[in-house]
This record gives sequence, C-alpha cells and structure tokens, in this order.
Amino acid sequence: MNGSVLDKYRFFDTDERIRQIAFDLYSSVKDLPIISPHGHVDPALLAGNEPFPDPTELFIIPDHYIYRMLYSQGIKLEGLGIPTVDGTEVEKDHRKIWQIFGDNFYLFAGTPTGVWLRHEFVEVFGIEEKLNSKNAMDIYDRIQEKLKTKEFLPRTLFDKFNIEVLSTTDGAADTLEHHKKIKESGWKGRVVPCFRPDAVVNILTKNWKNEIDRLSSASKIEINSYKDFIKAIENRREYFKANGAVSTDQGTISPYTHKLSYGEADAIFSRALKGLASESDWMLFTANMLMEMARMSTEDGLVMQLHPGSLRNHNQKLYERFGLDKGADIPVQTEYTKNLYELLNKYGSYPGFTVIVFTLDESTYSRELATLAGHYPAMRLGPPWWFHDSIQGMTRFRQSVTETAGFYNTVGFNDDTRAFLSIPARHDLARRMDSNFLAGLVARHIIDMDEARQLSRALAYELVKKAYKL
Amino acid sequence: MNGSVLDKYRFFDTDERIRQIAFDLYSSVKDLPIISPHGHVDPALLAGNEPFPDPTELFIIPDHYIYRMLYSQGIKLEGLGIPTVDGTEVEKDHRKIWQIFGDNFYLFAGTPTGVWLRHEFVEVFGIEEKLNSKNAMDIYDRIQEKLKTKEFLPRTLFDKFNIEVLSTTDGAADTLEHHKKIKESGWKGRVVPCFRPDAVVNILTKNWKNEIDRLSSASKIEINSYKDFIKAIENRREYFKANGAVSTDQGTISPYTHKLSYGEADAIFSRALKGLASESDWMLFTANMLMEMARMSTEDGLVMQLHPGSLRNHNQKLYERFGLDKGADIPVQTEYTKNLYELLNKYGSYPGFTVIVFTLDESTYSRELATLAGHYPAMRLGPPWWFHDSIQGMTRFRQSVTETAGFYNTVGFNDDTRAFLSIPARHDLARRMDSNFLAGLVARHIIDMDEARQLSRALAYELVKKAYKL
Amino acid sequence: MNGSVLDKYRFFDTDERIRQIAFDLYSSVKDLPIISPHGHVDPALLAGNEPFPDPTELFIIPDHYIYRMLYSQGIKLEGLGIPTVDGTEVEKDHRKIWQIFGDNFYLFAGTPTGVWLRHEFVEVFGIEEKLNSKNAMDIYDRIQEKLKTKEFLPRTLFDKFNIEVLSTTDGAADTLEHHKKIKESGWKGRVVPCFRPDAVVNILTKNWKNEIDRLSSASKIEINSYKDFIKAIENRREYFKANGAVSTDQGTISPYTHKLSYGEADAIFSRALKGLASESDWMLFTANMLMEMARMSTEDGLVMQLHPGSLRNHNQKLYERFGLDKGADIPVQTEYTKNLYELLNKYGSYPGFTVIVFTLDESTYSRELATLAGHYPAMRLGPPWWFHDSIQGMTRFRQSVTETAGFYNTVGFNDDTRAFLSIPARHDLARRMDSNFLAGLVARHIIDMDEARQLSRALAYELVKKAYKL
Repeated sequence: MNGSVLDKYRFFDTDERIRQIAFDLYSSVKDLPIISPHGHVDPALLAGNEPFPDPTELFIIPDHYIYRMLYSQGIKLEGLGIPTVDGTEVEKDHRKIWQIFGDNFYLFAGTPTGVWLRHEFVEVFGIEEKLNSKNAMDIYDRIQEKLKTKEFLPRTLFDKFNIEVLSTTDGAADTLEHHKKIKESGWKGRVVPCFRPDAVVNILTKNWKNEIDRLSSASKIEINSYKDFIKAIENRREYFKANGAVSTDQGTISPYTHKLSYGEADAIFSRALKGLASESDWMLFTANMLMEMARMSTEDGLVMQLHPGSLRNHNQKLYERFGLDKGADIPVQTEYTKNLYELLNKYGSYPGFTVIVFTLDESTYSRELATLAGHYPAMRLGPPWWFHDSIQGMTRFRQSVTETAGFYNTVGFNDDTRAFLSIPARHDLARRMDSNFLAGLVARHIIDMDEARQLSRALAYELVKKAYKL
Repeated sequence: MNGSVLDKYRFFDTDERIRQIAFDLYSSVKDLPIISPHGHVDPALLAGNEPFPDPTELFIIPDHYIYRMLYSQGIKLEGLGIPTVDGTEVEKDHRKIWQIFGDNFYLFAGTPTGVWLRHEFVEVFGIEEKLNSKNAMDIYDRIQEKLKTKEFLPRTLFDKFNIEVLSTTDGAADTLEHHKKIKESGWKGRVVPCFRPDAVVNILTKNWKNEIDRLSSASKIEINSYKDFIKAIENRREYFKANGAVSTDQGTISPYTHKLSYGEADAIFSRALKGLASESDWMLFTANMLMEMARMSTEDGLVMQLHPGSLRNHNQKLYERFGLDKGADIPVQTEYTKNLYELLNKYGSYPGFTVIVFTLDESTYSRELATLAGHYPAMRLGPPWWFHDSIQGMTRFRQSVTETAGFYNTVGFNDDTRAFLSIPARHDLARRMDSNFLAGLVARHIIDMDEARQLSRALAYELVKKAYKL
Repeated sequence: MNGSVLDKYRFFDTDERIRQIAFDLYSSVKDLPIISPHGHVDPALLAGNEPFPDPTELFIIPDHYIYRMLYSQGIKLEGLGIPTVDGTEVEKDHRKIWQIFGDNFYLFAGTPTGVWLRHEFVEVFGIEEKLNSKNAMDIYDRIQEKLKTKEFLPRTLFDKFNIEVLSTTDGAADTLEHHKKIKESGWKGRVVPCFRPDAVVNILTKNWKNEIDRLSSASKIEINSYKDFIKAIENRREYFKANGAVSTDQGTISPYTHKLSYGEADAIFSRALKGLASESDWMLFTANMLMEMARMSTEDGLVMQLHPGSLRNHNQKLYERFGLDKGADIPVQTEYTKNLYELLNKYGSYPGFTVIVFTLDESTYSRELATLAGHYPAMRLGPPWWFHDSIQGMTRFRQSVTETAGFYNTVGFNDDTRAFLSIPARHDLARRMDSNFLAGLVARHIIDMDEARQLSRALAYELVKKAYKL
C-alpha cells in the first residue's frame, strides 16, 4: 500500500476513535500471507503462466460481476465479447469493449466491484485516474503495455500478491493436469484443487450421463449402479486428496439433507441412467449425496463446504445463448434448521469433521446459522458470500452472527473469485472490514485491545488455516 | 427552509465529517422540483381547489398512518370521526377529535409520521411548538385561520411545494373527470393519472361484477368473455395514456406471474362472472393479469408498477365497519425470484419496457430484489415503501441494495401518500436520507465527491423522471 | 456502578454527541428498581435462601448460554459436569470444570454472555481481571470465599440488585410451594409465578399423560374429556392468580391460532389420551389452545405471552443424554400475519386484554410484528428475546420496530434468565442500549430531550409495569 489516491483509512468508520483503532489493527495484518481456500481461478492460468492477452480479456470477459451490471442497464453481452455457446460471432474489438466499460464505469459507484477495480488499477497497474469515457483508451494502452512484461505474468503476480495457498474448484472427473503441471514445474506457489461433484450429483441436468461417463473414465470404475457411483466418488476424492485437495464443495438449491436406503438411492440412480428421474428423485438424491459426502469426509478428512440457495440461470435465453455463470444466478430463500437436521444429528458432533456452511440469504444469519454453528462442534460459518462479499455485507455478517456464534465458529475470508487480479483487493477489503468491526467493539468497550489483536490475526490468517486444515 | 426549530442538520449522521458532506449534498438538491410519480391524493382536491375545511379534516381523517397508531393504543375510530360504511354516526366535533390527537401526539415520537407532522406544522403553518394536550386547541385555531386564506388553497400549495408532476392513482373505470377539469382550468399544475386495475382483476371481491360493469360502460365494450375484458383493459389504458398517464400499478398479495392459455383464462373469467371462481382461480388469474399487463406495457409504453405483499383488511370487523385502507393492512412474506421468473424471462430484457417492483418484505432487498434488478434490464427497484418510507427504512434500503444493484437500477423517491400536506415533508426527508447515505460513502472513501454530486441529483430528480418517462 | 474497569460509557456509540446524551439518559434510569416479568430462576433458590455451593454450580452448570459455546468448540458436556438423564457419572471436580471455563473464556469475546459475565465478576464479586487459564483457580477461590458469606445469600443479592418484582415460570400442575414459602417467610421480596401450560398442551410429548395426571391432582378435577381439561386449566390459572401470577406464557413452534369446535377439540383430546394423536392433531390442538388461553385471559385478566419459533432439542443424542434446555434449541422461520389472524380478529381489540408477542425471527420485526402491534390495541411486542438479548439484537429491534409501532407498543425489558446473577447485568445492558438508541434520535433531531427523558423512564420501568399489570 503506497501513499496513493487510495486513502489509507478507506472503508473504516469515520469516527476518529474507531478509525484509529481500525487502522492500527489493519496495519498489523495487512501484510500477512493470503490464504484463498475457495476460489474459481482457472489453474491453467498458473500452469501455463502465459501473459494475459489484453485488459478486456483480463478484466471484463471472465467476470460476471462486471457484465451483469452492464447488462442490467441494457448493454448486450454480444457487445461485450462474451462467447456464445454455439459460436455465433460476438464483438471482437477489445478496445471497443473497453470503451463501453469506460463509458459505464459510473454504474459501479458504491458497489464492491467498483472498489476492487479501483484497487486493482491503482495497486497493480499504478493507474490513479478513475476510468471514464475520455481516458478509457489511454488506460487500455497503459495496462496493455504492462501485461506484456514479465512482472505481470500470472506466477509473478501470485508471488507478488503474497498468496500462501490458492484453492481452485474442480469437477469430480477432472484430471487435475494443470495442478500436476504446476507441481512439476518447480515453481513453489501452492495451488490446490477442491472436489466439486455437482455435475455428477445433479441427475436432472442434460449433460449428466456424459458426466457419469467422464467420472467412470477418470476413476476407471464402470458405473452401472449407485454402489459403483459411490465407489467412483470415493476414488476421486482420494485422487484429489493425493493431489493436494483439503476440501470438497457442493452447490445445491436447498441444503436439505436426508439419507436414503441403499435400495432407494439405487432405484433413483437407475431411473436417472434411463433418463427417467423426476424432480422429486433429484431433490432426494441431492439430499442423500450431502449425507454421503459428509460420511466420506468423516472418513477421509476432507473439509466439507456447502453453498446452497442460488437459483442458477434464471434468464433462460441468456443461458441458452451464453451458458453458465453469466450473472443471472439469483438467490432464493433458504432454510437450514430443518434441512440440516439429519446431517447435523448424524455427523455434527463427529470428532475432526468440519462442515462449512455459506448462505445468500442473510435473514438466516442470526436465526439459523449462528445458532447452529454456536452449538454443533462440526459446523462453521463461511464468510459472507458472493453478493455479500462487500463492505455492508461483511458488516451485516459480523453484526448478525458474532453475538451468538462468537468469532471462533467462523473461518476467515474466502474470495470466491474467477478474477485473479481481484484476489488481493478482496482480501484487503475483508481485512479492513474485520479490523473495523473489531475496532468498533474496542471503542465501545465490548472487547479490549488485547482481544482485538488476537482476533484480528485469527480472522485474517489463523482461522482459515485451521478450518481448512492447511 | 428557514432558521426554524427544525435543525438544519436533522436526520443526518452525527459524525461531523458525514454531517457536513450530507448538508452540502442536500443543499444542492433540496430546492429541486418535486416529482411524485406514485401518490394517492384525490384529484378532486386540485380540480375543485376549495379550501380545506379544518385541521381535523386535513390531517387526521384521511390519514391512516395517524389513526392506526391511535387505534393501537385503544382509541376508537368512531371517536376520531372516521366515517362508517353504513353511515352510523361518528364523532362530529372536530375540535374534540383534535384534542385527542394532541393528547396522544407523544405516541408518534420516533416515527416518520411524527417527523412529517412536525415539518408540516413548522414549514407550512409556522407553528413551532410541539403539539400537546395544552396547546391543541390554540394550534387548531391558528391552523383553521390560515386554511381560510387564499395562500392555503390546494393549487397554491401545490405551486408553493414546487411540484413538477403529481400522479394520482385511478381505477380502470374511472372517467378521469377531475384530471380533465384540471387540464381545462388553465392552471398549469401537472397532475396525471395512473392506471390501477386491481378492482377489475380481483375476481373474488364482492364488488367485482359491478366493477366489470363500470369497466364495460367506461370502455363502451360489452364484457362477456376474457377477450372482451382484455380489450376493455387495453381500451382504458389507451384512454389513461391520452389523459396523461405514464404508468400502471398493481397491488397483489403475491407477485406470482404465469401466463394462462386463452382457454384457461376464459374459463376462469367465465366462472368468475357466474360467481363461481375459487381461490386457485383467483391466484392464477392474478398471475396471468400481471403477464398481460406487462405485455400491454411493451406495446403502449406505460411503465408497470408492482406493489405486492400486503394482506389487506386484516381486521375484519374494522373493515366491515369502516371499509378499506384503515390502517389494518399487514405485510406478509413475499417471494420474487421464483414468482417473477416467467415475467422476467418473457419481458425482462424487452427494450423500452420498465417494471418497477416494490416490497414490504425487507428480507428480499439483498436476496432477491437487488440481484434481479442487478441483472434484468427492464427491472427497477421502487423506493422503500409505506412502513419503510422512513429514516431507518431508507437507510436499510440503500445499505441492502446498493452494493448489488448500484444506484442506477433504482428510481428515486415515491411519496405514496393520501396526505397532500405531507408531500414536501416526505420528499425533504428522502433527500436528506439519500444525501446522508452518499455522504457516508464519501467519508469512507467508497465514492468521491464528484460521484456523490452526480448521484445526489440523480436520486432526487433525474432517475424518477427517466424511469417514469416524465 | 463504581469507578471500575468497566468503562462508564461502555456499549454507547462512540460519537461524542450521542455518547454524552446516552450517558445522561442512562444515569437517570440506571438505579430504578428492576422489574423482571419473565424469568426462569428457580423459586426454590429464594425459598431456601441457602448459599450457592460454588462458582461452577453458580455460573456454569445452570447456564446453557455458556456451555452451548464450549460445546460448539468440541468440549463435551460430561466434562462440564452437566447431569445426565440416566444418572451416568459426569465430571465432579468443579475446580477442574472451572479451569476449562477459564481456558476457553476467550470464546465469549463479542458475545452478550461475555459482557454479562464481566459485569457479574466486577460488580458482584469485585474481580477486575479478565478470566483466563492462569488466573482461573485464583478467581475460583475468591468467588468461593464470598459465596460462603451472608452478603451472598440469594435474598440478600435480590435486595442488593434492587429487584422490585421477579416472575418465575411454572408448570400448570406446579404446587407453587416455593412461592408460598417465600410469602410466608416474612421476607419482602416480591416473587410471582407465571402460568406455563406447555407440558399439558403438547399432546405429542412422551410425558404428556403424566402431566395430565399431575394437572388432575393439582386441580382436583378428574380429566376424561376436553371439557375437564379446560376446567382444570381455568382452575389452575385461578390458583396461580391467587398466588400472585399476573401472566401466562406459551412456547410453540408456530404461532398458528385457530379455534376448534368443541367436538373437534374433544376428539383430538380423546385420541391423545389413547396415545393416538397425530402431528396434525398436535398442530391444531396447539392452535386451539392459544385461542382458549386468550379467551381465558379476557376473563381472568392474566396477561398472555407467546414465545414461538424455537425448534427444541435439535440435537437428539444430546437431548436423550442430558434432557431439555441444553443449548440445542434452534430458531425456525416464523409467520405472524396469517397465524395470528384468528386470535387478533377475535380478541385483538378486546378491552383490557394484552398479548405480548416475542420472536427469534428478526425478519418479522418490521414486516409483521411492528405492523400488527401498530394496529391491534391488545398486542404488544416483547423485547428482543434470547439470542437477540444483546447489544446488536436490541439495536436491531429498536431500529426495526420503532418507526412503525412506536415505543408505546413495546413493553420494556425481560431478562428471561435462569442465571440469577446475570439479572442486573442484563437489565443494565438493556438500559444502556435503550439510552443509546434514544440518544441517537436526539442527536439526529428526531426527538427532543424532553421526549427522550420521558421515553427513557418508560422503557426502563413504566412500560413493563403497565403492560404486566404490576
């Protein structure tokens, strides 16, 4: 952090008492290594270590946080160069796309994306001006210039960002070739996979049979029954673990958990193989797989993560034209107390087992999540997720959960990002907000400065390391 | 705003940094014209331009915000002069009613009604004392005195309030005679109608058949089928538009949207005409009419407004005795992600179409509304509505939606009031709160002062004008 | 309050303007007598007036707030000396348990339990050090020393705490012998019972038949029908009232209210006596009993309290091993608008009837509870309950309900505690938070200082006295 246009007290409360304590706490943790235990950066980036092609490829095309907002104001994704599923042509002039971005940068005022981008421009590229219509091309050129240099190669940035561990997210059938390549390269950056079985668990998706075939190839287990399927999953978890994975992750609409009998599970699996599975089959099978994944975690020690409550691909036409993850995943109300009942009753007090639960439904923070995590030894709360990975979102999270769950039933920060450059910006913001929250408690005499220092370090570094067994 | 008992920094954060910026921003927008695109003032008031009869008629009898609170503390509506449906006698001594109001004015401490009333007393009538038991009669007399003068005629106040546009809310069968009279009067105040078809859409209400007859007369279309009904609606929308309307409005329990086939819709309509419609018919017909109204808006350009989630007339006996809108409409949990799915998939990206969505369920702000409005180009968020049109309500709204939807997917302020005198008080409060929110962002270095100035003007004036095509 | 390590401005906003006003308001109410109208202290404590055996028995073993948090971090209840249902041996060395408590005291940083304990240590025992691993045994000894003295007998503390009234919670079949003993003892402390019929209303619990037998004995009414049952309940309410009770209380999962016909109710009761009641019977019977209890309250004048929304004994194994109230009661989403419809329509405007409603679902504050209480004369809002009896919880409560319900539809503070020593700590915190909230309103010119003073006294003392008819 230099004496830049980014104010050193930014995001802290304006009250002088709180601000000074916050700055003090923040100063002592800001340079700690970054642990990113749940992200979506493509490992190929670090395996290949090729220069980023241009600013538009770097900032806009991979980041649905950005084009979601542009789309909401009537800008078409075609014009932003987002590739189509069927290969129909889209805008190829990346300078033109960047100009649109500059013209509309004002839309991000007050959003975390706006804040992260400012951080990236200033801290990574030394660009202090705010992007706008007039300076867009000039800024494009200046970034482009830098991207060609060695200092801006992915691994160099990884080291510069002081990343201690980066976890990617990888499908059950993934070969993890990029992870292997990284390890074999001699470069010392620690990049680990995370086992995400959604594609083989979602028995209703069109592509499911193919995914099962891929799982079968990867595990070298012929999959004709539920038993085979479970064996294949166990096999892949083992493979992931051998390649450095410490965790699994599942994204479901509902966190409903329920163990089916072998017969029930097998019957559903068999219907699914024939393309005959129903909505109810899908719901029960998902609930059952959460139980199975928890059971496996008690056996192989992988930390279980659960990200429920996003209704994916709300905009059907957009999905058909551009595919997954295009900024049209919309949260739905989510229930945890009843849905996690079976899982927590069976495994919630199991020694050594950890399930980290996330939400997009903030109304559950104080009502369900903090009360469950404040009781069950195995349960921990993931940080504010996605839309809530923000100044207000983090504030609401700490305000809502701390009094019931304390700090030690939470697990530090996750950046959850596909945008590699935004990693330090996001961690910096999180460290600022946690410092600010703790400073508020000190200034109001709820905790003392010793406690705050200890907590500050825990939230920035120690809790995540412990929770994810890193 | 004079150097009055109303502190010039009122409602702003107390922190000096924020307060000064807030006051600066507020000062630059406080005198902008008022655009009131969604209100419930009776157009007869401005068509007739008669003096207000007395303080009780002006402040108490039309304002359920006021007598709701008095009722909650055991004061009967009869004693407050609220007219009964069957004409049974109620208190006629308006001085006596005003005395009750004075005796109980302390109940409004900390409520927006308390704040608005103070503004109205001081700014409109120059009454600086706080109303209480002792001064009630004196204040009554002083207001009464002023109401007799020309300065207090409705149109004079309208001009003094600097209202650029006032939209009323009018039933589908309304002749709009008052609007015509205003236009023909030569007075230059712009008063426009808004098309509200609830009475003809709610097929289960007792009065529905009469409403259909009124619609039929108004549109000069005999209504024997769903097709006729739709034609009549389209006809009336055209008529409203020709008389200045820019928008429509619908109030439903649920925002569920679903297009029925013509056969299904016609069958329900036909059952309804025979008085045989079921709860399920009503639900489906409402869902279908939201789709139809959206479709019509894509054709005639009227902005669509949706106000779901109020369970009307919760207190049955009160409803039977005093009728609609008596302070007993109670919010219920409301779901948007799934319910708006069909409408947004069909029309959410339609060029030029705008649907403005409101809520009484604040838990949906960050979870559903901001995420939907932050994606679909047609969707905008209405301001905090009704119980949330308040200092804390506005604060929560901006805190919850801004980070995901930004500012430009919101539409400025609506006063939504039946109480004509409260219009400037409500807009003043909204401008103060938005200035304060922006000031907080500036003081924490989330946005800069240039952005804040631009946003300040947008929130006070420009966004509403653009969103409502005014 | 001495010039202790507890800062005199603690918990107030840091802004100097607010802080000074808050301190001023707090100073004028901090020494008012404590009215505790809803608690769970065992009346035997005050009937026997024996010395507390030791610090572990005093602080840890009766307080699920404390061992819930320890359990959540993997500490077994056996090791904390929590008695088992079957009498299996648990840790008996209370010094050892206290050491565990000291080792893990840091877990309570930022929680209300942490804040209350600090208050108790400092204010009651004069122990200014923060508990930790090193000083745990020393602190144990110092507390133990004091507990042997007369100054620390329960009644002496009761008087020292300046408790004007303490309500306990007592089952329908309770003989109230301890209450009688207190009254007969000549000691002037006012300890009153509260009638809680849950054990005889919950027809699905294993122990229900026994409870009916106990009710039968207590009321001297043979219970063979629903009619007998209702008579017995009425009989016991009368008995409680004669022994000082001013209120009843019911804890239900859902606040659904619905009156059954006599035939329906009797049929369910009869099935229940045969052990044949279904889930649906249970739900309907509970809904019916809320109606019956309201009806009885309109007759005998007891204030009705309703505490819905806790899913009791979420952790089945823990429940089987340790019984009720072991920190595993988890809130669920709760609906009031529709569920209270029947009760409020029938009794919500009944003169003299009061129903005080609580919640663990904060999303209902602004949406349902404030709007209902802001309309129905009989309904009042209980203070933030259980997990929300906290600094942030109280802040959210006032921020969410005040603008719609005002202050006068709320009822002051309830401590709801089993931990006798925590009563003054909890009331002190509540008085601080209400003072702080009012100070914020004054500093922002929403209310004036006169109003704040009046409200301050109302919230600390007058409203609770009035609402509970004390």
